[in-house]
Amino acid sequence: MEKDQNILIIGAGLCGSLLALRMAQRGYQVQLVEKRPDLRKVTQDAGRSINLALSDRGLKGLRLAGVEEQARKLCIPMLGRMIHDKEGNTFLSKYSGREDEYINSISRPGLNQLLLDEAEQMPNVTLAFNQGCRQVDLENATATFKDYITGEENTFSGDVILGTDGAGSVVRKSMFNHKKFLFSFSQEWLTHGYKELEIPALENGGYRTEKAALHIWPRGEDMLIALPNLDGSFTVTLFAPYKNSDYCFDNLTTQEKVTEYFSKEYPDALALMPNLAEEFFDNPTGPLGTIKCSPWNSYGKTLLLGDAAHAIVPFYGQGMNASFEDVVVFDTMVAKHAGNWTHIFSAYEKARKKDTDAIADLAVDNFHEMKEHTASPLFQAKRKLETAFEAEFPDEYHSKYSLVTFNEDISYEAAMKKGRAQDKAILNLLADKKITDDMDLRETLTLVQKETKDILHDDAVLKKI
Amino acid sequence: MEKDQNILIIGAGLCGSLLALRMAQRGYQVQLVEKRPDLRKVTQDAGRSINLALSDRGLKGLRLAGVEEQARKLCIPMLGRMIHDKEGNTFLSKYSGREDEYINSISRPGLNQLLLDEAEQMPNVTLAFNQGCRQVDLENATATFKDYITGEENTFSGDVILGTDGAGSVVRKSMFNHKKFLFSFSQEWLTHGYKELEIPALENGGYRTEKAALHIWPRGEDMLIALPNLDGSFTVTLFAPYKNSDYCFDNLTTQEKVTEYFSKEYPDALALMPNLAEEFFDNPTGPLGTIKCSPWNSYGKTLLLGDAAHAIVPFYGQGMNASFEDVVVFDTMVAKHAGNWTHIFSAYEKARKKDTDAIADLAVDNFHEMKEHTASPLFQAKRKLETAFEAEFPDEYHSKYSLVTFNEDISYEAAMKKGRAQDKAILNLLADKKITDDMDLRETLTLVQKETKDILHDDAVLKKI
Repeated sequence: MEKDQNILIIGAGLCGSLLALRMAQRGYQVQLVEKRPDLRKVTQDAGRSINLALSDRGLKGLRLAGVEEQARKLCIPMLGRMIHDKEGNTFLSKYSGREDEYINSISRPGLNQLLLDEAEQMPNVTLAFNQGCRQVDLENATATFKDYITGEENTFSGDVILGTDGAGSVVRKSMFNHKKFLFSFSQEWLTHGYKELEIPALENGGYRTEKAALHIWPRGEDMLIALPNLDGSFTVTLFAPYKNSDYCFDNLTTQEKVTEYFSKEYPDALALMPNLAEEFFDNPTGPLGTIKCSPWNSYGKTLLLGDAAHAIVPFYGQGMNASFEDVVVFDTMVAKHAGNWTHIFSAYEKARKKDTDAIADLAVDNFHEMKEHTASPLFQAKRKLETAFEAEFPDEYHSKYSLVTFNEDISYEAAMKKGRAQDKAILNLLADKKITDDMDLRETLTLVQKETKDILHDDAVLKKI
Repeated sequence: MEKDQNILIIGAGLCGSLLALRMAQRGYQVQLVEKRPDLRKVTQDAGRSINLALSDRGLKGLRLAGVEEQARKLCIPMLGRMIHDKEGNTFLSKYSGREDEYINSISRPGLNQLLLDEAEQMPNVTLAFNQGCRQVDLENATATFKDYITGEENTFSGDVILGTDGAGSVVRKSMFNHKKFLFSFSQEWLTHGYKELEIPALENGGYRTEKAALHIWPRGEDMLIALPNLDGSFTVTLFAPYKNSDYCFDNLTTQEKVTEYFSKEYPDALALMPNLAEEFFDNPTGPLGTIKCSPWNSYGKTLLLGDAAHAIVPFYGQGMNASFEDVVVFDTMVAKHAGNWTHIFSAYEKARKKDTDAIADLAVDNFHEMKEHTASPLFQAKRKLETAFEAEFPDEYHSKYSLVTFNEDISYEAAMKKGRAQDKAILNLLADKKITDDMDLRETLTLVQKETKDILHDDAVLKKI
């Protein structure tokens, strides 16, 4: 029966490709339609290598579809944050006290190619590229597309439509503009934008700085980060305000000004970026936004997943991971309620929405943590303590970062609640000097656990009313 | 100089009318344009009387424009919440332990008429009705309107445009659809809708139930409220889910079903509502939404105020009050930066946005408080204690409700932070049985104050990083 059902997936990015592969493995007829050209045939973005952080939730999704091992071959482990101060001093703040907990730098196009190749090998998957979605008829599960090659208008349909067309989702806009049901929606922009730059590889293909780390230059209101690529280069991203500061994007209008800014704020990075001044003006400045909406499905016929349903800012390195986890949760619901799409879609949203809301909020928090707090002594004292807990008592303590990033069986929402309570406990104990030098680590952990428990107890009081 | 400046105000509801009056008092040339007919000439809404809760922040705005005393003549004081249980038992939960702290039921059209009359008497105010705004040219401060009488298209312009065109604001939509700057926006709908009903006056013009109270029938997932009108009637509002419950709006499709529902849940109210069954189907069911956005101004030429900038759900009785407070804050900025609209607009948003965000969130909280918590023993114990504090130590304790409603010199944001900490402190002390019968009221207050201080201290830790 399932083999007779047609699924139209709009958007063949990371989420749509993995979803197509998995739904095909379940036996559905899958049509995967993409706006852009086939990235396996056409080099896009002027050949720049964009990378992402892949961690345990994402790996779980890849594992479900049987492609984890192939993806791992594209990975560069990053063991912690390499913090660079203004003087060029560096220190490594590990992501965890446990040796096996690290994140991975992976090429976005490389991983997308892998997933498309796998999907294409399935006999029940059809791919179509260069098809720009114009509009979705939500009540009938049909969508119209403009073919960018022929200029013609095409209509595709399915028993259901899964919209994985990213942060600017046309499927979601069709829901927003449809006036027959109440659609909650938010788009929140940070006052900062971002620009991608590069630390090129050495001539011998080697790395100009530490390979196995995510580099951060935190400067309070702005910051630079860098992630390694397989070819020896690093993709660098500058995050800065658009307005109202000396070196905001609106003021960085000349090569001299850009060089002056980097000399002052990021001298050690500048030394590794011979092409900075030209590159800065070749590459676009992008906005940073969070998108939430509800309901994700309409009429039991169309469902949003991935960034189309919940675009988040990149500061927790969880955008792709959350989207792959979407596929896992959705797959569970498909197994449970097979044949009843209305049940599948509403059970999926019910199980998933609170978690994607949580990671969206955590990602905004982490923006402030990365650009400001990583440079603060109180924050560093907290991280030092947490890393010691994790090394000494690996089964008893997981920091918020570890709960979110390395514990794929704990939901984002649960990770957020516990992680925030732990952070509040440790920061207050440190600030109030209740953690003293004469305490041993076990004693300190016991104190932190008690304080965390008290915080969670007090926060739960509204549920008792 | 100011007299040469033209202000175009779009929307002559409560906020727009008060704003027009105040800007005219400052000497500006004001053109006030409204979509609906002049409500002083055309009876709208089939003559139903819609009322609102007017409290200290709103009164401050009216005072600024010299119309407080006239407005007070339209007011009916409500001293507290009259809670009705399923058996028809009632008890009054006062809004404050201080005698002079109460809210007022006031007719929306009555107050709007008063403000329009006052505005029209100013020689520098022009009014135009039946003009539906189609679109705003944000860069040039001109707007096009359809005249609903002649069918013609009109263009109005000003040195600046102030958009007070309510929750469905066309001015705001022009900002949303304008793609040249990043516009953060959210619309969040509750799963509940509302329907207005009536308890008619007695034949002699008397009231069928207690006049000096806001009546609530809290039933967990749904509730009924009633506010008195000057003519002896009460405007009743039913709040219920659209879906997924026995008596949700989607299921209330016949007069029998409606009567059955009210007999079961609101028998004492039903006894006062002879026309319920017909009225239920004559009146529309409306949605309940919160709208936030930013920036409120574009190009230093157009500014959103009132519901157009921040529509909130009605559960704190603060929608109109917040809009009138907007006028007060805006007026301060006009005085301070006269002549420089760009400064006025950005200083206004900087001062005001955090407060309107706060009241939006408090209003959603109060939805849950009213329909669920008011019926709970723990919540009632808290209110009893707070009322005793306020009666015994009127200068030392102000509940969250009192801070929000009766303390117009404390910002909404400050009221929210302190009020939430107090609530958490009292609820936890009660739930954990740390407030005991042998403690006197002074001792209890000292304990609550200490606990509140500790909570605020611990919450502030992120600022120390």
